[in-house]
Amino acid sequence: SSGRPADSSLERAMDELLLRAVPAAPPYELREKTPAPAEGQCADFVSFYGGLAAAAERAELLGRLARGFGVDHGLVAEQSAGVLQLREQPREAAVLLQAEDRLRYALVPRYRGLFHHISKLDGGVRFLVQLRADLLEAQALKLVEGPHVREMNGVLKGMLSEWFSSGFLNLERVTWHSPCEVLQKISESEAVHPVKNWMDMKRRVGPYRRCFFFSHCSTPEEPLIVLHVALTSDISNNIQAIVKDCPPSDTEEKNKIATAIFYSISLTQPGLQGVELGGFLIKRVVKELQREFPHLGAFSSLSPIPGFTKWLLGLLSSQAKEHGRNELLTDSECKEISELTGGPALETLKGLLSSNDWAKSEKLSRALQAPLMRLCAWYLYGEKHRGYALNPVANFHLQNGAVMWRINWMADASFKGITSSCSLMVNYRYFLEETAANSTSYLSSKNIKASEQVLSLVAQFQKQSKL
Amino acid sequence: SSGRPADSSLERAMDELLLRAVPAAPPYELREKTPAPAEGQCADFVSFYGGLAAAAERAELLGRLARGFGVDHGLVAEQSAGVLQLREQPREAAVLLQAEDRLRYALVPRYRGLFHHISKLDGGVRFLVQLRADLLEAQALKLVEGPHVREMNGVLKGMLSEWFSSGFLNLERVTWHSPCEVLQKISESEAVHPVKNWMDMKRRVGPYRRCFFFSHCSTPEEPLIVLHVALTSDISNNIQAIVKDCPPSDTEEKNKIATAIFYSISLTQPGLQGVELGGFLIKRVVKELQREFPHLGAFSSLSPIPGFTKWLLGLLSSQAKEHGRNELLTDSECKEISELTGGPALETLKGLLSSNDWAKSEKLSRALQAPLMRLCAWYLYGEKHRGYALNPVANFHLQNGAVMWRINWMADASFKGITSSCSLMVNYRYFLEETAANSTSYLSSKNIKASEQVLSLVAQFQKQSKL
Amino acid sequence: SSGRPADSSLERAMDELLLRAVPAAPPYELREKTPAPAEGQCADFVSFYGGLAAAAERAELLGRLARGFGVDHGLVAEQSAGVLQLREQPREAAVLLQAEDRLRYALVPRYRGLFHHISKLDGGVRFLVQLRADLLEAQALKLVEGPHVREMNGVLKGMLSEWFSSGFLNLERVTWHSPCEVLQKISESEAVHPVKNWMDMKRRVGPYRRCFFFSHCSTPEEPLIVLHVALTSDISNNIQAIVKDCPPSDTEEKNKIATAIFYSISLTQPGLQGVELGGFLIKRVVKELQREFPHLGAFSSLSPIPGFTKWLLGLLSSQAKEHGRNELLTDSECKEISELTGGPALETLKGLLSSNDWAKSEKLSRALQAPLMRLCAWYLYGEKHRGYALNPVANFHLQNGAVMWRINWMADASFKGITSSCSLMVNYRYFLEETAANSTSYLSSKNIKASEQVLSLVAQFQKQSKL
Amino acid sequence: SSGRPADSSLERAMDELLLRAVPAAPPYELREKTPAPAEGQCADFVSFYGGLAAAAERAELLGRLARGFGVDHGLVAEQSAGVLQLREQPREAAVLLQAEDRLRYALVPRYRGLFHHISKLDGGVRFLVQLRADLLEAQALKLVEGPHVREMNGVLKGMLSEWFSSGFLNLERVTWHSPCEVLQKISESEAVHPVKNWMDMKRRVGPYRRCFFFSHCSTPEEPLIVLHVALTSDISNNIQAIVKDCPPSDTEEKNKIATAIFYSISLTQPGLQGVELGGFLIKRVVKELQREFPHLGAFSSLSPIPGFTKWLLGLLSSQAKEHGRNELLTDSECKEISELTGGPALETLKGLLSSNDWAKSEKLSRALQAPLMRLCAWYLYGEKHRGYALNPVANFHLQNGAVMWRINWMADASFKGITSSCSLMVNYRYFLEETAANSTSYLSSKNIKASEQVLSLVAQFQKQSKL
Repeated sequence: SSGRPADSSLERAMDELLLRAVPAAPPYELREKTPAPAEGQCADFVSFYGGLAAAAERAELLGRLARGFGVDHGLVAEQSAGVLQLREQPREAAVLLQAEDRLRYALVPRYRGLFHHISKLDGGVRFLVQLRADLLEAQALKLVEGPHVREMNGVLKGMLSEWFSSGFLNLERVTWHSPCEVLQKISESEAVHPVKNWMDMKRRVGPYRRCFFFSHCSTPEEPLIVLHVALTSDISNNIQAIVKDCPPSDTEEKNKIATAIFYSISLTQPGLQGVELGGFLIKRVVKELQREFPHLGAFSSLSPIPGFTKWLLGLLSSQAKEHGRNELLTDSECKEISELTGGPALETLKGLLSSNDWAKSEKLSRALQAPLMRLCAWYLYGEKHRGYALNPVANFHLQNGAVMWRINWMADASFKGITSSCSLMVNYRYFLEETAANSTSYLSSKNIKASEQVLSLVAQFQKQSKL
Repeated sequence: SSGRPADSSLERAMDELLLRAVPAAPPYELREKTPAPAEGQCADFVSFYGGLAAAAERAELLGRLARGFGVDHGLVAEQSAGVLQLREQPREAAVLLQAEDRLRYALVPRYRGLFHHISKLDGGVRFLVQLRADLLEAQALKLVEGPHVREMNGVLKGMLSEWFSSGFLNLERVTWHSPCEVLQKISESEAVHPVKNWMDMKRRVGPYRRCFFFSHCSTPEEPLIVLHVALTSDISNNIQAIVKDCPPSDTEEKNKIATAIFYSISLTQPGLQGVELGGFLIKRVVKELQREFPHLGAFSSLSPIPGFTKWLLGLLSSQAKEHGRNELLTDSECKEISELTGGPALETLKGLLSSNDWAKSEKLSRALQAPLMRLCAWYLYGEKHRGYALNPVANFHLQNGAVMWRINWMADASFKGITSSCSLMVNYRYFLEETAANSTSYLSSKNIKASEQVLSLVAQFQKQSKL
Repeated sequence: SSGRPADSSLERAMDELLLRAVPAAPPYELREKTPAPAEGQCADFVSFYGGLAAAAERAELLGRLARGFGVDHGLVAEQSAGVLQLREQPREAAVLLQAEDRLRYALVPRYRGLFHHISKLDGGVRFLVQLRADLLEAQALKLVEGPHVREMNGVLKGMLSEWFSSGFLNLERVTWHSPCEVLQKISESEAVHPVKNWMDMKRRVGPYRRCFFFSHCSTPEEPLIVLHVALTSDISNNIQAIVKDCPPSDTEEKNKIATAIFYSISLTQPGLQGVELGGFLIKRVVKELQREFPHLGAFSSLSPIPGFTKWLLGLLSSQAKEHGRNELLTDSECKEISELTGGPALETLKGLLSSNDWAKSEKLSRALQAPLMRLCAWYLYGEKHRGYALNPVANFHLQNGAVMWRINWMADASFKGITSSCSLMVNYRYFLEETAANSTSYLSSKNIKASEQVLSLVAQFQKQSKL
Repeated sequence: SSGRPADSSLERAMDELLLRAVPAAPPYELREKTPAPAEGQCADFVSFYGGLAAAAERAELLGRLARGFGVDHGLVAEQSAGVLQLREQPREAAVLLQAEDRLRYALVPRYRGLFHHISKLDGGVRFLVQLRADLLEAQALKLVEGPHVREMNGVLKGMLSEWFSSGFLNLERVTWHSPCEVLQKISESEAVHPVKNWMDMKRRVGPYRRCFFFSHCSTPEEPLIVLHVALTSDISNNIQAIVKDCPPSDTEEKNKIATAIFYSISLTQPGLQGVELGGFLIKRVVKELQREFPHLGAFSSLSPIPGFTKWLLGLLSSQAKEHGRNELLTDSECKEISELTGGPALETLKGLLSSNDWAKSEKLSRALQAPLMRLCAWYLYGEKHRGYALNPVANFHLQNGAVMWRINWMADASFKGITSSCSLMVNYRYFLEETAANSTSYLSSKNIKASEQVLSLVAQFQKQSKL
């Protein structure tokens, strides 16, 4: 919103649009007697917004909407005073309840009316999902900021949460008989282990695999969130066996299937971030799988550890600044690395991690396995954000009640896997009888339930680092 | 809730249930970090409620829920004070916005959480629709009363309005190829012109007829509200031609179709009363019909006038008390009635209307046509409730923007038609270009748009009654 | 085909139509190079035929088609001579095979070409099914006769058998969610135990019941043949429990289901008579039921015995003529009947059976049970047509390999049941392991496999009647 | 069928199988009273055949079936004699008709019973389609020969023609919403213009394109024959614009669509060769397109000319042998080619056509255009097989009643296009009013209807070659 002429004319157009398009809030008494705004009024907003090509322009419009069409603070204060007065001079319940209802009504931001009416247009809900995606991106890119925008984001999220409530979600299974449209969308949205080509995709919906998604009941065949499952004999300790190797046979033999591995979960609609979908999807898929395979013994994820390498490099940098300090490697580890590389361990390690070269050397790999496993265990288990696990994937599965079960070496040997998490992946295991209790315990007391393997690695780290 | 032992043990069970089933409201800070209550917790409420056979028992439970698990008034007052203080000692926007958000959060009644979680259960939304139907019935029967219950009803209605928003409704057409299940439901819910048997139903979904309903996208084939349409050459002035006579031919000839008559609209889910469905349905059906018949010239209802006879009998009674007063009939009308029946006009008329006998006599029918038409025009146009039309059907179509177009004599010659509205029916006509303006004008200024026929009948009434 | 003017002009129109519509048979050499006749050519026949309102007129047209457009006997004789000559003066195989193929081609009646091309029109196969129904009815009513018509019927049946081959039939299950159209058709075609109203129909597709039909894959939802099944604990010995009584519960309890009773099978398309559908349908339904209820223990029909009363009355008449002869009743039976009715036993019995009155008297019922059961056993087991069971229902189930298992007293106490078969019904039981062998044995050696009950009743009859 | 031991044991197994699996033909009298063979009997054949890995083994089995289980020639001769005798000593019609029917029955080869029963198995028809594909391939490869095999092929083709009659075919449209399975099959079966990848495929089912196929009603979503259509403004004169270029816009503008170009038709089931499918498909698609675009002005193919280059090379070779003879090029053409290449024209041309190099030189291209167009016109119009067009694609469209409309230079500039037909393609245009007449004229009189362009090119050729 600089002062350039072109901009200011756009800004004027924005203000005019908003004045025209955002419905006025009717007085409390008439709130149920007010006709819906003309269809064109809200459609105007949709087409104006759609015509804004630049992210910055859309952000500007959203900012103006948030700041200019929120709550009438004077009215809120007035109604608050009314409520307070009734507190001091009590009257019959009906009077208090109505005063509170007026206050509640006053607290509804005006832009909520706009969103509400847009939601009734054809494709309106889809538009709002996209609008929120833009808003989140604009916030991330700092194109727009401030408490009003945060409030509007919260309001939108609340509305989307109502609409995308689990009662309105349909579980759909993807097979090679699904429409190409669907498979293309799923293929493109697969962020965890990218799909190379269509035969790769065919493999992921073929024998010993399941692919499910949630769609909203009003838009069938539109994936909102996708879960890929592998049906295996044991809990997988690497992703290669799942996405690269061929299935044991072309038709499934039920007796070879003892375990369900959730190896990828992707939200295809960024505008639904924060709307609870993933946990529900896993629960529903578990039920679906149990119906098909009543004797399925184990459920577990095989999850990436995004951010581990980056965290570790940061740690190496900060320790490098404090010369001589080394809480990350044991002496013998340092020695071995130095011998293998001919340089000082920490610096060398930093270089190695940045270049991925270590993975090509068997010796280096062997030397690094123990320290990296230990460090990773700490990263997952010990690093926190507001008391919860820092790693978002860990946080997701722990919220769902899973156990941090096994850290796996050379579990993702792809370039991406080595770059982002030093080849490590982790299984979060779902013990169905305990997930509810684990979830409550994690959310309320921030306790992380972990296996002996993980706890022992954490203990080794703590011993070494004296943390 | 008398003091009988059996009751008090049931009441204790109710209180225990509610304490167990209604989720606690987490503190504002943890509102997004609180795990969903265990499935069983809410399912408990559902099954307990389902086990209550008597309407009075269900009403009792709902009353306890409304009174005991609403808003924490103390907290609301506290937060209101916080907002007021910021008004007096302004600080940065973020602080005010957060204070308002805390207040907003405090204003959410605790039972909303229960409803929210029930909505996520399988069949949960359907349960809540039924629960609200029970609540409305209990209020009508005075089984439960008071502001808390009214507030809970409002909260439920708000939630249902979000879920049954037009974006999530599917328009389905009923034909003889639709499932028997659907036709049976529609047949049973047809309140306006009852369906006699299955061939009667087949007729109503056959040639020159259309039958549409809205279903929620999560429950296809479950009618929420049903609209019956007849495709005719002219605007029908009686219902017999629609529900009794045979169609002009077995296959529709498009050139015989110039008019769409909405001859019945029925809400099949009483729990959705007040959720805006009927107006939307008519709009959608108009669009659908225009797609099929681009040259359709006129859209009109052929509507019953429930309550007219009852209103008229009341009027006759009150005038009868004031001896000698007669503002309802002209002198010549009085004379003619007296001559035909041999008794005093007003008393005789009262008896005739109560007995339906007048309709069997051609002479009496002819004598009564003019006064009844005039009185009916006044009933529809002049009688008000809070400024809006007293007659609910009139109010519905006027809200939608229709014009009160023509009152029709002998339009429903069935027993029911003569009993409830002296054989009269009325066309509310939809001039598509004007409905939006009409609707706004009616809702905001309470203006009723009526045709010359209606206005002239009203004028005749006014002249006679000196009102 | 009298000589009246109107008729003769119709006959002329028929001849002209046939000359125009029946495609000429191309010479053998060009048989694959001949273009299909113009669509209009065959459609002409279809519309002309459709315009003939009277059965006699349609029969006349079919007779003319059969007689005038069959095989060219001269050509057949010529080609036969060619084949015979090669028999006498052998040449290489190719020459003989081609001669035979020419002969085969010459033996194809010309009207087959008409039917073939009609089959390719929209709705053409349906038309031919109806045409054959007309043909069969016309033959039954003697509206048309002779070997040419019988041949044409055989050719049509052969074509329909190819088209309605089991590979092209879909098994569809009827439920209350099926289209009304389907349920109405099934209801109307139920010949065995007529459907009274729609709730009666709902019952027959509800819990503890199954209703299946075959449709052709090109016309889904059009029942060709329908099978009704009751799921019971024991093999039912009366129809009242199935079509009148309420089910044990509203939801099926699998452990109460041990037996499948086929209580009605109806061909809905008379034009498909003789096309093997019923046996296939029973086989497919058995498989379907086994899939749903793997532990189903017994499969049996509960079948009517059409013609039994009529047969018995005939027998009584013929014995009455030979005064004094009585091979049907034992002396004590005669005495008891005489005592109860006060008249001579045989004459009385004849009167009783004609009037249905006996069933209202408990004593008479008891007295008649033994002789009627015995006579019925003989009727079913001993009366033959060309060596196979005379009773068509018996013949049908025996061909399928069922066992004549139990004759049941008071099994159909309806007016129709008492009138047509003295209240008796019979179970044909399907022992799945043995049906193939039983079927072969019956069809090749005409052996009827029956249970001890039936055989013992037959023996009693034989002893009495000295047959 | 050499004499090696291994083979002879396989041959013995084959003979045993056939004796076991091929049902005996019942006597004429019992033909309708014979039970179907046990399911296992025919299934045996299916699984034995399926187990034969080598094409030669399958061919051997089919040969034995054809030779050993055909018609009983003795019986045919006997029945022929019976028919002949009746010709000489006439009796009533019924006797003759029955004698003919017996003869007809005797002429049915025994293996027809096997095929008939296989067709009733699950997947049986599909098996027979595959079996015929094998048979055709075996005949083409001379793995099996002789009149018995040809006869069996004819019998199978006749049965398949009955089953795949147009009344049982469903037209399905392919879009990007169709199952991947379907798109993969269509992509793989596209023989005319191979599909490169999935985006290529998406293009061919996207805007301004249509893709239709016939499936049998018993196996929906299984393409039997596929037709690709481009919707264009003019009759396309090259394939590049259709399969490579981007569409004019992403959404179709109806006013830009004046022409439908059939640019590829592929039979996906070789076993259905000779069963009339292609002509029907084009007719159905024309109707479908007319329904969608009532004002579509022109229908035309854009067809390849397989075999042209090969034919031309053969001609050049044979003329080269007759030294000095040259009826293919004019003197000036010879001179120009010699000048451009520095060698003798005919020899040089032969080399050029074999190498595709000429297309890379603009000058050579220009020099060759006129002679190649002329020669191609003759190839299509003048070269015959049994009086019909030698080129199979030409023969197909001419049979359907199309006109040989335009030969297009550089119409397929792909390697394949230049190699097989010197870059030429041809439009066969469908003038809907005339196709029926054209088809009859071509089939009965072998007249080829061609445009002036084609006829003028043919005249040039004839003038030059003095043919």
